This record gives sequence, structure tokens and C-alpha cells, in this order.
Amino acid sequence: MICGVWRRKGKMAVNVVESKEWYLAGYAAEGVPTTDHLTLRSVPLSLSLDSIPDAHVAVQLLFISVDPYLRTRMSGQEDGLYFPQFSLNQVITAFGVGRVMRSKDEKYSEGDIVLNAFFPVAEYCVVPSSVLIRKIDPEAGIRLPEYLSCLGVPGFAAWVGIEVLGEAKPGSNAFISAAAGGVGMVAGQLAKLKGCRVIGSTGSDAKVRLLKEEFGYDDAFNYNKETDFDAALSKYFPNGIDIYLENVGGKMLEAVLNHVNPHARIPVCGMISQYNQIWTEREGVRNLLNIVGKEARMEGFLVGSYLDRFADFTVEMEGYLKQGKISSKIKIYEGIQSFVESLGSLFSSSNFGKVVIEVNKPR
Amino acid sequence: MICGVWRRKGKMAVNVVESKEWYLAGYAAEGVPTTDHLTLRSVPLSLSLDSIPDAHVAVQLLFISVDPYLRTRMSGQEDGLYFPQFSLNQVITAFGVGRVMRSKDEKYSEGDIVLNAFFPVAEYCVVPSSVLIRKIDPEAGIRLPEYLSCLGVPGFAAWVGIEVLGEAKPGSNAFISAAAGGVGMVAGQLAKLKGCRVIGSTGSDAKVRLLKEEFGYDDAFNYNKETDFDAALSKYFPNGIDIYLENVGGKMLEAVLNHVNPHARIPVCGMISQYNQIWTEREGVRNLLNIVGKEARMEGFLVGSYLDRFADFTVEMEGYLKQGKISSKIKIYEGIQSFVESLGSLFSSSNFGKVVIEVNKPR
Repeated sequence: MICGVWRRKGKMAVNVVESKEWYLAGYAAEGVPTTDHLTLRSVPLSLSLDSIPDAHVAVQLLFISVDPYLRTRMSGQEDGLYFPQFSLNQVITAFGVGRVMRSKDEKYSEGDIVLNAFFPVAEYCVVPSSVLIRKIDPEAGIRLPEYLSCLGVPGFAAWVGIEVLGEAKPGSNAFISAAAGGVGMVAGQLAKLKGCRVIGSTGSDAKVRLLKEEFGYDDAFNYNKETDFDAALSKYFPNGIDIYLENVGGKMLEAVLNHVNPHARIPVCGMISQYNQIWTEREGVRNLLNIVGKEARMEGFLVGSYLDRFADFTVEMEGYLKQGKISSKIKIYEGIQSFVESLGSLFSSSNFGKVVIEVNKPR
Repeated sequence: MICGVWRRKGKMAVNVVESKEWYLAGYAAEGVPTTDHLTLRSVPLSLSLDSIPDAHVAVQLLFISVDPYLRTRMSGQEDGLYFPQFSLNQVITAFGVGRVMRSKDEKYSEGDIVLNAFFPVAEYCVVPSSVLIRKIDPEAGIRLPEYLSCLGVPGFAAWVGIEVLGEAKPGSNAFISAAAGGVGMVAGQLAKLKGCRVIGSTGSDAKVRLLKEEFGYDDAFNYNKETDFDAALSKYFPNGIDIYLENVGGKMLEAVLNHVNPHARIPVCGMISQYNQIWTEREGVRNLLNIVGKEARMEGFLVGSYLDRFADFTVEMEGYLKQGKISSKIKIYEGIQSFVESLGSLFSSSNFGKVVIEVNKPR
């Protein structure tokens, strides 16, 4: 909410906003976080240039990326996961697209559209300009939320998983779990472009159709309808699995390990089946011994470690997007207040595609 | 037992031997294989040159290497392990050192000492000369069983694990499980030579002393006395684990995954705690999610895939042996009849060092 104005170069300019933001009120050790754990508050934010430190910018958030890893930062348990835990009473941060409103850095001007991996989940913010990843050209013909999807964290994760760690080659048999999710839908299309045979698992018949009809998967199955993952993989992979992009963990990983080919690659992007349980209560994977005989490689990755390849990725992915070779389903939640609902949707079988929040309408 | 003689070049030469050999009488799905599963039989073998095919050699076995992977070939279950199962009623094969008695290949002469990864577990055999890995120079100053220890499968596995996949560097924190076993004792010494801080786990106090006093480990602990592996690793690795040479699996792996540093390497050589159970009855590993946040790499390996590096390894390891920088404990069982007992010893906490059978005395 805009609360005040300030005259600058003859234009009326906002100088104080009431910014709604989500903060962590309590850790969620188990289950999907709710409004018991996340609270929306409203804070006044001065946008007057005087109040903005040097080398900082004031930003109006446009789109926020809602990704499963956020949940792992809310458990209160530093058990070797991802990033550090969010602090209690501090605002949550996420990847996002915003519009510069004020700048105390000559590299950025009012109106620039910018990307940042750690924007506050808020309507407005003031951040150091050093944290901005880059400016986006709004005339490039790519819709803004795509910078959080194919061109954002999920797209880059898919690229690192399939191309860098998965070493996708023509003829490789690739299996993608959480295949209709933000990472999976891009990963499957990338693997197809590299000449792989691609099978996906997902949580509904509607998503099975989506994978086959819109994303070009060779085949896909609904894991909620399979009582025996091992038998399903025997059917879909008569020649074994060369690449498994791991996004779910647990029983699916165990089944995969019974079907890996020699020198299989298992880039581990995430394990969404594991996020809502304390680790000692999870079902373990019993057949890890198979990675010896098959000389399989399981490798966890965080996209932040591959930023030296981000420019290569961007060029390649922008090319695919402009040529219509890759497409993306984006589920847009309206308004900052939808954060908890949108986060919860990631853990539901009904979720598909990339989840983003439209915080403010782009002008 | 020698049964007949044959005159050649003025010397009396044996032309028929009664050779004892071990064959698989029945698969052992669970537990340690016994004489219920393995049977010794005696077969006559003609050593007359006429009866030996071209490009074959007749060999008197001297030493046979007894390694844990052999057990995985006796379960009757092709569940993604190691090599294929041994066939019922067929002779077991193993890495060994033998002496050429007759040769139908000009590259080999009577008296040559030779290495082979798949010698029959027998007193004598006739094999294609193409399977022989190389000749050994008996004047090199290295005792013959060392070719099955530091210079054999365990030494090579240690080298691949520590140097190739483990990427050992000065200052790395390395943890070796089954540390007093054939692979572990060499791996720890190699890691020390590369400048690592090295901790081992093993199954008795006597072996803890051996690791610290003879093999130069910085510290070691007896896993049979630790009720909480997690707490033990907190104590021994205050700065986390960079390299874990995995040889046991199960609960130890789970504990390690709570202590891995970013970009940790876990070369998986074997998982001896898992070999005597059907996989569905094993306790699973519940915290694999940690490999994502730590970007850890777990990679199974079989030494057979690294044979292009065997010559590099041999040069390096022979150097260490001649300079006294690496030593090896070798437990020698006498006579082919000791195979079942020696195999069983691998699964006992009292085992230490490399286990070999002296089949015939070297002359």
C-alpha cells in the first residue's frame, strides 16, 4: 500500500510504502508449514533517496519463485540440508523478479527489471545492489515469470542435472521424478533435446497426460496408482536406467537402484518425499549396495555452485524458448498473501508446473 | 597331489595331477557361506603339452586372494551387485598368483610367476594365457602375497578410492571404515601419504592399536564399543568429513552422512555389513537427503573399470613398498582346504589385514 508521495523531477513519486512481508513465527519440524509458522505483517518502508544507503536499490517485487527448498529452511533443524535455517521473526527470502523504484547505484535506474536469489518475500524492499543477479530486457519477448521458471532456479537445476551431472547423450534412458514440477518439466524436455528416451513419474493422470502431450515425454506414469514401483520401472525401462534426476527420494530411489545400468548417473536435485519428516522417522533406502556393482554415481547439487555456468545456460535456454523448443507451465498465485497456500501446493499431488506469486502487476 | 610323471628335456616332469578345487554346491541367500554351500572336490588334470590347447598355460596356484566380494557371488540373487553369480557346480574363481608349469604361449615359460584375476580356487589349472594380467619378477624384493595385498585388488581399490575418486589433498579429513581390512589398511596409509588427517573404524581394540601404531592412522575407534556412531564421529571429526571410503554401509554410512562437509566424496568400495542379508531385510539409510545440501558425491566402483590406471598404480605402490612407506598385514591360511574358513573370517571382527591362502609353497 502506498502511503505517501514525494515530488522529484516534477513527477509525483511515492516516498513511503506499507509493505506486507512474510516472516517465520515458528519452526515446523514436521508436516507442511501453515500460518501457525508463517505470519504476514505490514511494515512501513521509506523510499526517499535520503533513507536508501549507498550501493542499494529500492525494489517493488513483481514475481516471487515458490520452490520446495524453502520448506527445508523452516524446520529449525540444521541436519545437513540446503541453506541455513531462516531465523525466527525474520522475513523469508526467495528468488524473484522486481522493478527498481529508486537506485543509489549508477548501474541501475528506476524502472529496471532485476533478478535476485534472495529477495524478501515482501511487496517492497531495499537491498544492496550487489545481490542483484542481472537486469532483464523486458523487450526480449520472454514473459517475466519465465525468468523464475525455465530461466530461473528450476530451469538451471534441470540443466545442471541433465547436462552437467547427468551427461545426457543420444540413446540414454532417462527417468525424471516429480516430472511435472518446476524442475521436472524442463529436465524432461532438455533430455529429449539431447536425444534421450525420457520417462516421468508424477502424481495424477492429468499430469501424466500433460507430460506426454505437452512436454514430449516418451511415457509417464502416476505413482499414486502404482503399488509396486519396482514392477513399474521394469515395464518402463526394459533396458535399465542411465540417468535418474532425483527429486523425490525414499521408495522411488530404492526402486530406481534396482534398475540402474552400469555407470548410471543420479544427480540429486532434491527429495521432496523427505522434507516433511524428521530424518530418523523416514523410511530408509535399503539397496544402496547396488551402486557398487553398477558403479553408479549419486551426486547432490545446489545450483549456487554452478553459477560460473549460468551465462552458458541462459544463452542455451533463451535459444530454446525463442525457438519454441521448450515450454513451461506456470501456476500464478495472486498477491503476497498467497505465499502459504502456494508453498503448501508444492507438496500436493495436484500441483503442476512452476509455482510463482505475482506480487505486483508489471506495468 | 601329483599322480604321474612325464619325461621332457631330460627332466622328470609331472603330467597328471589330482587337483583339489572348490565349487559352489548351493547358493547362500543369507548368512556366511559354509560347507553346506561350498564343496571341495578332487579332479585329475592332465599337464601333458598335447592336452593343453594353444594359447593356454598350465599353472600351479601359489596364493589365492580371499576378498569380501566373493561372497556376493554366492547369493543366487542378481540384485545389482558386483560380478555375476557363480554357477552351481562350477569352480569358484579368485585373484591369485601362480607358477607356470607348461606353456603353449611363447610369451610365457615354465617357472614364470603370473597374476590372474580369475584363477580357479584350485591347486592347479589350465587357463587361456590371455587372462593373465602380467608376469611378476620374483627378484624385485617384494614377497609374493603382497601382489594380492598392496599390489593386488585391495591395494588397487584403496588407490582408486583415495586418489582417483576421493581426490585426497593435504588437510582433507578422511574416514576409513573396515580400516584394518585388506583395503582399509592400505587406504589409510595412502591418505596419510597425501597429507590427510585419517581416522579409522574397526572391530576390536587390538585392531585400533594396529591402525595407530603400525599404519599411522591419526586415530581410530572400535565400532563394537560405540553405541552412538553419530556421537563418535562428532568427537573424531570436529571439522567434518571430506572423504569417506565406504566399505561397510548401513548405520555407519548413515552416521557419516550427518558429518559430511560440502563437496564430500564417498567412494563406495563395498558394504560388508550388507552382504549376508537379503536387501529387503536390511536397515535402510534414512538421511540421504543430506547429500543434496552438502553436494556430496557417492560413487560405486569396481577396480576392473580402472585397469587403464593399473600401471600407474603399480609404479607408485611398488615405490612406496620399496621405500618402506607402506606396509601390509597379511593373514595366510595354509592349503586349499582352508578356503571356507578364510572366507568366513572376513565377516568376523577378529579378522585383520589381507586374507590369502597359500595353496602351494613357492619354490
